[in-house]
Amino acid sequence: MANFPNNERRLLLRYIVAFNGVIEDYMTEKVQFVITSEGWHDSFEDALMENANLNFVKPAWIYAINERQKMLPYQPYTVVP
Amino acid sequence: MANFPNNERRLLLRYIVAFNGVIEDYMTEKVQFVITSEGWHDSFEDALMENANLNFVKPAWIYAINERQKMLPYQPYTVVP
Repeated sequence: MANFPNNERRLLLRYIVAFNGVIEDYMTEKVQFVITSEGWHDSFEDALMENANLNFVKPAWIYAINERQKMLPYQPYTVVP
Repeated sequence: MANFPNNERRLLLRYIVAFNGVIEDYMTEKVQFVITSEGWHDSFEDALMENANLNFVKPAWIYAINERQKMLPYQPYTVVP
């Protein structure tokens, strides 16, 4: 999760934690999802070379989970180049 | 892999097999990737409910792997709604 305004960041963190998500501040090898509202960034290619399991997804995924109050597939919310 | 012209289908199969890919004709629970050139389809949502690990990717992924002669991350080739 990067570069969100503080209030949006706080909201997203709350929703993620509510669904048992674990937050990491850096793209460690444990990280599965990077939440970004800024579209594809060239650095994502490098990140994928380090961790092939990363998925870059829009915050809309988190909001949809909160609204529906159930886990939803992340694939429709994937960020692509 | 669905709805490709026969010659393209044959080419894709060859490239996939060359990189040790295993082909399934139906979306069984073993399937990780669905190769499609037709964009997002509503049926993908249902498929994800059955198999949360599915990834829908463009054939460009397969062609890029063949051109570069190495495995590449699928994420940049993901098909989204």
